[in-house]
Amino acid sequence: MDTTATTLPSIDLRRVDINPDFWYPIAWSKDLRRGKTIGRRFGRHPVALVRPQDGTVFALEDRCAHRQVPLSKGVVEGEAVKCCYHGWAYGRSGRCIDVPYLGKGKLPNGVKTYPCREAGGLIFIFPGDAEKADAIPLPPLAQVDNPAFKTRHFSPAVGCHYTFMHENLMDMNHQFLHRRQMGQIRARFLGQDEGENFVEARYSFARSGNQQPLAERLIFGKHVDDPNRVQPIEEVVTIRTTYPYQSLKIHDKDGDLIMELFAAYVPSNADGSSCQTFGLLSVLRPKTPLLIDIIWPALGVFTNRIFLEDKAVVEMEQQAWRELGGDHNVEVFPIVNKLRRLLARHGVPHEDAPRSHRA
Amino acid sequence: MDTTATTLPSIDLRRVDINPDFWYPIAWSKDLRRGKTIGRRFGRHPVALVRPQDGTVFALEDRCAHRQVPLSKGVVEGEAVKCCYHGWAYGRSGRCIDVPYLGKGKLPNGVKTYPCREAGGLIFIFPGDAEKADAIPLPPLAQVDNPAFKTRHFSPAVGCHYTFMHENLMDMNHQFLHRRQMGQIRARFLGQDEGENFVEARYSFARSGNQQPLAERLIFGKHVDDPNRVQPIEEVVTIRTTYPYQSLKIHDKDGDLIMELFAAYVPSNADGSSCQTFGLLSVLRPKTPLLIDIIWPALGVFTNRIFLEDKAVVEMEQQAWRELGGDHNVEVFPIVNKLRRLLARHGVPHEDAPRSHRA
Amino acid sequence: MDTTATTLPSIDLRRVDINPDFWYPIAWSKDLRRGKTIGRRFGRHPVALVRPQDGTVFALEDRCAHRQVPLSKGVVEGEAVKCCYHGWAYGRSGRCIDVPYLGKGKLPNGVKTYPCREAGGLIFIFPGDAEKADAIPLPPLAQVDNPAFKTRHFSPAVGCHYTFMHENLMDMNHQFLHRRQMGQIRARFLGQDEGENFVEARYSFARSGNQQPLAERLIFGKHVDDPNRVQPIEEVVTIRTTYPYQSLKIHDKDGDLIMELFAAYVPSNADGSSCQTFGLLSVLRPKTPLLIDIIWPALGVFTNRIFLEDKAVVEMEQQAWRELGGDHNVEVFPIVNKLRRLLARHGVPHEDAPRSHRA
Repeated sequence: MDTTATTLPSIDLRRVDINPDFWYPIAWSKDLRRGKTIGRRFGRHPVALVRPQDGTVFALEDRCAHRQVPLSKGVVEGEAVKCCYHGWAYGRSGRCIDVPYLGKGKLPNGVKTYPCREAGGLIFIFPGDAEKADAIPLPPLAQVDNPAFKTRHFSPAVGCHYTFMHENLMDMNHQFLHRRQMGQIRARFLGQDEGENFVEARYSFARSGNQQPLAERLIFGKHVDDPNRVQPIEEVVTIRTTYPYQSLKIHDKDGDLIMELFAAYVPSNADGSSCQTFGLLSVLRPKTPLLIDIIWPALGVFTNRIFLEDKAVVEMEQQAWRELGGDHNVEVFPIVNKLRRLLARHGVPHEDAPRSHRA
Repeated sequence: MDTTATTLPSIDLRRVDINPDFWYPIAWSKDLRRGKTIGRRFGRHPVALVRPQDGTVFALEDRCAHRQVPLSKGVVEGEAVKCCYHGWAYGRSGRCIDVPYLGKGKLPNGVKTYPCREAGGLIFIFPGDAEKADAIPLPPLAQVDNPAFKTRHFSPAVGCHYTFMHENLMDMNHQFLHRRQMGQIRARFLGQDEGENFVEARYSFARSGNQQPLAERLIFGKHVDDPNRVQPIEEVVTIRTTYPYQSLKIHDKDGDLIMELFAAYVPSNADGSSCQTFGLLSVLRPKTPLLIDIIWPALGVFTNRIFLEDKAVVEMEQQAWRELGGDHNVEVFPIVNKLRRLLARHGVPHEDAPRSHRA
Repeated sequence: MDTTATTLPSIDLRRVDINPDFWYPIAWSKDLRRGKTIGRRFGRHPVALVRPQDGTVFALEDRCAHRQVPLSKGVVEGEAVKCCYHGWAYGRSGRCIDVPYLGKGKLPNGVKTYPCREAGGLIFIFPGDAEKADAIPLPPLAQVDNPAFKTRHFSPAVGCHYTFMHENLMDMNHQFLHRRQMGQIRARFLGQDEGENFVEARYSFARSGNQQPLAERLIFGKHVDDPNRVQPIEEVVTIRTTYPYQSLKIHDKDGDLIMELFAAYVPSNADGSSCQTFGLLSVLRPKTPLLIDIIWPALGVFTNRIFLEDKAVVEMEQQAWRELGGDHNVEVFPIVNKLRRLLARHGVPHEDAPRSHRA
């Protein structure tokens, strides 16, 4: 009855934490209005994002120094956020600048801050060593600033370790999972590339069945359906994990970019069993100006259905990991093994949640 | 305030796992159609049952060898089941027979299989040492094959250790629990029997009150109601645990069998705190041919109400066990103590769930 | 990323159990009718309260000595409670007085009892050393027996350690939390008192804003609203923890008592992360006889809204404690630190729940 006999790797990839010395999106800009604060998480760390009436967003540890309740439940006044409970106030520097019932000379310590930036409709923090933040650039955010493209946001929460998400997208042989949405499409591996901080896989697609869903046709173009012949699709799909982000690009037969996806999978709880996806999907606007607006809703439904299938399967992987007590993955696809080594190499050891202090 | 002072037995019966070297029902035949697969559990082990278009049902470990997602979420094609994720295919032998994107020469290992049989509307697996399976017979399945009886299926999930279920039925003094359903019925212990792999208790019943519920009357026959006299019921009820199954038989005053119950309590999670009951209740068809069909629904309601009371009380026992951190049972009824020793003797030590592997 | 660097106190107040050698309310009298039994909890200990047809309420350990199922699910007959399962009967002494299928000579042991009293509409038990019970008085129950006052009951369950509740009320600087209910009211600390088993803080209140909610006005009296002046409120609010209870009294400018609150926070689960509040709020009846009945519903809504804000914030404190694995409170208000020392000094070490016994 022992199903655990498989040799475990010396490092369990699902116990590797994401490297905090990068910029991570943790909220959409539109979700934080002027004069407001919201609470988000990076792994086990709660983060309060504050957008004053004037000035840029800033990010604080989301626990008042007094009684550890979330500052994001508080009130923004001027450049400060006041804790909801006793009104302790904190500025952009994290310093406690007012305790309403205490003399100014005896103010207590403040709270941790996170470097914070805003770009492409996303709010980023730098959860690691703040001194490194300036030297580390934000990632390229698909074609969000390119007017030739229209960009969709998506941000599903997924109940799995962030590494499952990278593996899911990198291995396009999983088109079998989407057989109901994408018909009898089959990935063909074209080649790969690898560097210190990235791995990349390139695929083309061929169709064996005779039904092409509408939205797929709108994205990939129409194919003459001949059930007896494999239909080559001319586009090339390039998937790349540039640590810690992931991108997917589709180029047409002329080598022009027609679609680009940016995705970040941000751990959202203490034990690493859930993550928050932030995705930007940029699609080239067709020459007929209105067409993109017409297909946009169908594209949304289509990508959402596909994503729900991915979400279901990676959550089953997480569930199996929990039940088996470790990673039993037996990988046969070389690019996925390269990806796994990349994620293990750049990650950091899992930070266990603190145990209760006992008297 | 210490309520745990009672001496614990050297073996905690609720930490004894059921012996896997027996045939256990894990699904009803009608729930698995041709060309389909379903997922079930035996303790902490997930099991995929597969019924090909042709041929008999087979049982595989319900985790793809690749990424451990359930094969029962996949697709049955011919004699094989294909994993829903990347389409790895497994045959009846558990061997991986196809990875769509891999040469046939380098196929990875397959998955564990379980001996599997079908009888009496139930699908059985043999979760233990497969070499022993042929030598171990299926249990007698009440009167499921006897046309003189009509047989009802029931299969409630219960949130308790399987041993509580055996004790519940064996101790007919618990009729007090069913006082609202069965009136003032009182069990009278007639005798017992015991062997290496079974214990048996025999009871008759007497009534002191004056109300006899309809369904009970239909099962046990009509009694002249005299509130001032204890009314002997002539039937003899025999309850027997023949490890690991349980049966209840009712014989009438002439010694003829009029009702027979077969029950198996199959652990359904990793820590042993839940089980799936599979029950077959065979009732002798009365001489008036249509009568059994008329009383059948009332019989169902009646047995279901009784069962819900049993379910509630055994789940309270499990809850107390969890809170107290062990079995504090103080048993005064000898046959139940014999039963407890039988269950402890034939069971196996609890198999703890694996801990997460730490890097 | 380490947010736990703050020096922890040598005793974690949230790991200090409440001292069982006091009388604790665990139910309202009106919830237990004659001839009935109900189940309640004191920490990890389940308690069955029994009110016979004749005689006073008594309290038993809520686990049958036989199979540990709750006696409070049973039936009261005469002066005894019969377990719902096999009908074992227990009297006021906790002794097992009947097992229906066993000779009277061989009755098993009984269950633990708790000294039990009833006063002010509350049922109290003494969970600690029963020999001390007679020497320890019941607490003063606000003005529940004073006809000049009308008394409201309230009993919300709160998901936090009982000590957070004491700190919440004692520190009136938390009026900021109730800014939507109480306007721009500000507490002014007047002084304190301290003894071996109590701490006391006195406050007056001043208002800076210009809106006075109706119910507050009804409680505290009408103030002439001048937004440019701070309005002193003449009443004095006295908050006192007399271990293990808490009270709040409001005296008017003449020194007459106009409102009194009694509160007990009774731990209601094994790990100390929840408690059941029992509160009595006595309000002086105004000279116009009907006025109190008219304002009563508004007073209820008002106090309930305030309480929901308190409940939300103390539950956030408990959540932060769990995530941080200990008490990181940085207290700057001296009376709260005195209170914390009082609670630590009179409490007892946390009693961990028993671990499962392993074979």
